[in-house]
Amino acid sequence: LIKIFLLLFLAGQIFAQDFHGNKELLTKAIVEKALTTQTDYRLLEELCAIGPRLSGYPGAQKACRWAADKLREMGCDTVWLDPVTVPDWQRGNIEEAEITAPSKYANRTLQIGALGRSTGTGGKPLTAGVVEVDSFNRIDKMDPALISGKFVFFNEPFDQRMIRTFAAYSKAVIQRTKGPVDASRKGAVGALVRSVTSRDDNVPHVGVTRLDSVVKPVPAVAVGVQDAEFLSRALKTDPDLKITLTLSCANMGTSVSYNVVGEIRGSTFPEEIITIGGHLDAWDKGQGAHDDGAGCVQAMAVMGLFKKLHIVPDRTIRCVLFADEEQKQNGAEKYAARADSLHEHHVAAIESDRGGFTPRGFEVDADSTVIEMMQSFLPDLQPAGIEWIRKGGSGADVSYLKHIKARIGYFPDDQRYFDYHHSDNDTIDKVNPRELALGTASIAILTELISKNGL
Amino acid sequence: LIKIFLLLFLAGQIFAQDFHGNKELLTKAIVEKALTTQTDYRLLEELCAIGPRLSGYPGAQKACRWAADKLREMGCDTVWLDPVTVPDWQRGNIEEAEITAPSKYANRTLQIGALGRSTGTGGKPLTAGVVEVDSFNRIDKMDPALISGKFVFFNEPFDQRMIRTFAAYSKAVIQRTKGPVDASRKGAVGALVRSVTSRDDNVPHVGVTRLDSVVKPVPAVAVGVQDAEFLSRALKTDPDLKITLTLSCANMGTSVSYNVVGEIRGSTFPEEIITIGGHLDAWDKGQGAHDDGAGCVQAMAVMGLFKKLHIVPDRTIRCVLFADEEQKQNGAEKYAARADSLHEHHVAAIESDRGGFTPRGFEVDADSTVIEMMQSFLPDLQPAGIEWIRKGGSGADVSYLKHIKARIGYFPDDQRYFDYHHSDNDTIDKVNPRELALGTASIAILTELISKNGL
Repeated sequence: LIKIFLLLFLAGQIFAQDFHGNKELLTKAIVEKALTTQTDYRLLEELCAIGPRLSGYPGAQKACRWAADKLREMGCDTVWLDPVTVPDWQRGNIEEAEITAPSKYANRTLQIGALGRSTGTGGKPLTAGVVEVDSFNRIDKMDPALISGKFVFFNEPFDQRMIRTFAAYSKAVIQRTKGPVDASRKGAVGALVRSVTSRDDNVPHVGVTRLDSVVKPVPAVAVGVQDAEFLSRALKTDPDLKITLTLSCANMGTSVSYNVVGEIRGSTFPEEIITIGGHLDAWDKGQGAHDDGAGCVQAMAVMGLFKKLHIVPDRTIRCVLFADEEQKQNGAEKYAARADSLHEHHVAAIESDRGGFTPRGFEVDADSTVIEMMQSFLPDLQPAGIEWIRKGGSGADVSYLKHIKARIGYFPDDQRYFDYHHSDNDTIDKVNPRELALGTASIAILTELISKNGL
Repeated sequence: LIKIFLLLFLAGQIFAQDFHGNKELLTKAIVEKALTTQTDYRLLEELCAIGPRLSGYPGAQKACRWAADKLREMGCDTVWLDPVTVPDWQRGNIEEAEITAPSKYANRTLQIGALGRSTGTGGKPLTAGVVEVDSFNRIDKMDPALISGKFVFFNEPFDQRMIRTFAAYSKAVIQRTKGPVDASRKGAVGALVRSVTSRDDNVPHVGVTRLDSVVKPVPAVAVGVQDAEFLSRALKTDPDLKITLTLSCANMGTSVSYNVVGEIRGSTFPEEIITIGGHLDAWDKGQGAHDDGAGCVQAMAVMGLFKKLHIVPDRTIRCVLFADEEQKQNGAEKYAARADSLHEHHVAAIESDRGGFTPRGFEVDADSTVIEMMQSFLPDLQPAGIEWIRKGGSGADVSYLKHIKARIGYFPDDQRYFDYHHSDNDTIDKVNPRELALGTASIAILTELISKNGL
């Protein structure tokens, strides 16, 4: 209701203004409209209510239809669904781990979640001893005799010393993505991986683990950090302890999902395309509110802002909600391949896949002259909270676009992201509406500046 | 346990290093130590467990003793308590508001909280009609005949358009600080004030209201935003509706509290003082976790960091936990008066009273040459997340220090602060340990740079 009040109050002011030629007024209008309408947050409420939208899950299909409907409602000129073949991995109902020997642990359970693409145990208990590896790199040098027939327990902690949490994540996550295959190669029967999170909690933080065409897949799970600490201590006194793991997860082949695309056609250079987007799939733990519901609704809300503020872009703005970022990035691959085969002219692609937190900057993967030009936009982005534009990575999905001037990653503040990431913690109550809206405003302003000026 | 693991892991590395002359190593050590030990967060857990610490409450006394003990434990050379006369306002057990006519509202209650220093109703019901004022400024022009014998309902919303939430707060909070007195001056029997918050919730956000030596004090309460919206709608259809207010709060005179001070004596210029601090009192709603538990534990943790990292400051570092910022700022006044009477040489004072959120910058109230010098420190502050140093306000407490080179305010990100401010929402679960620790690191680095270089 505050929103409605302010909206009505602002309506007179905003629609009476003519932005053409007045960048400052336009920027102000975008920020104020984003903060007062909070369209992104309302979309996120709807998206989170759909249910788990992991590739292959019914929610993924529903989310695609919902997003297409919303993009039409928001006034996109064209909306389409582009089919993408995606993995169909199902978690199933059973995921249990217990310490079953020695008896003093009396069936002590561990908080676990199957890693995505992991094979299961067919719902039957799998019992084995455990060997701990405190750093992923160390498994290379280990004698297979120590590993064979056991679970390998990867227990490298998230490095809290690092201020950049994405760097700390990258450093630790390799034990999740590559660890299980390496363990299997040396004869392990399964892998337990300490959750890769900045939070001192006991919630499994899941995510994909890689499969290998040669190595036999083994069951692999994320373990809550506190239970990982417990297990590590227990192994010191009882190196022969046994764990029984039961998983019903399974790879079911493939499924079809969609890249959902909505477009506002450019008025002056319609053939020049600016992509903005995030990925619509999400892990089935939590609601995927930050990862990457936030990025999706921000891109969608940018389209809404253009329409509501009667901004007619010079270049074509395309909102792309990518399929299946989490497992195989087939959506991104398809979008890039389509761009190539149609000889589309892509100017820039902005990805938001680092959560809906307060704005800090944009990282740009482009030539230094392009980055310098974008840095000249900074004064117009500062009213939305953007502090810097620098050379760096962009995002998993837009990095597939090879023939493009700039791949851009929106960088909100990163201190809380891995508290929630890939876990039951990633729910909409962790998203602050004002922080989310400032991200939307930042992306909208940058999009309009690129649309107006090119790169 | 992760923390202990990392601490042990780091201990060898850090203590083996000699920072003298190597600013970069020192900065890195401060950031890493803050992030891994999380001393600030552990102190905040203890402080929040003490109970309400509003001036005059038993928790205020306990918090002073606790803080002094902790500052001693952390290795301060000198710790003292400086008595301060503070207001003794007690909320009491009863605060109730109901719509008692017309009957269709059937005793609909409103979520309210008495404003600090408000008079009560002696625990007896006070029934009157309501006149709404949608903007504080409008009351000036209103006919007292419309107001006399009624409750004035100040219903100006928090302006969500503004990116700087402290500016939006300042704009709206005047209806809380000045509204009740203005209403009484025109004959009102009481005041209902829409909660000043950025959140769409129904929790009363309280805070102080001013008393006037001439105007008769009237009962004044904060109303939850959703109930304020409800009341506003109800008044449109039923302008004669009646509210019954019952409050047991009362001004009980004065009490004694303390500025808690801990000092690490400077080795080269011991007579030159750098003050760092926050205020130890807090509203009795919630736990005062962000306001200003965060600022207190950050200043305390800075003292701990200096000791743990064996940093011997050139100038004297003084951690000051001010008494009674929330009601009369007698603590700040006393500290400044003491500084003057002892002819102390104050170089800089850094206040943290904007919550324990992720760092953005420092605002400095100083001559431009001093600010320029401080801006040359930026490269050393960026590793802790600081983006800027600019001219601006400092903080309510340090602004009392008149003979000083620089009054400095730590500015974390401000988007969430007024979601929690002065309400039941302000609890420790809203504080992120990494964000809090980066604030501590930022203040520690700035303190050491000023200690080394002067201003």
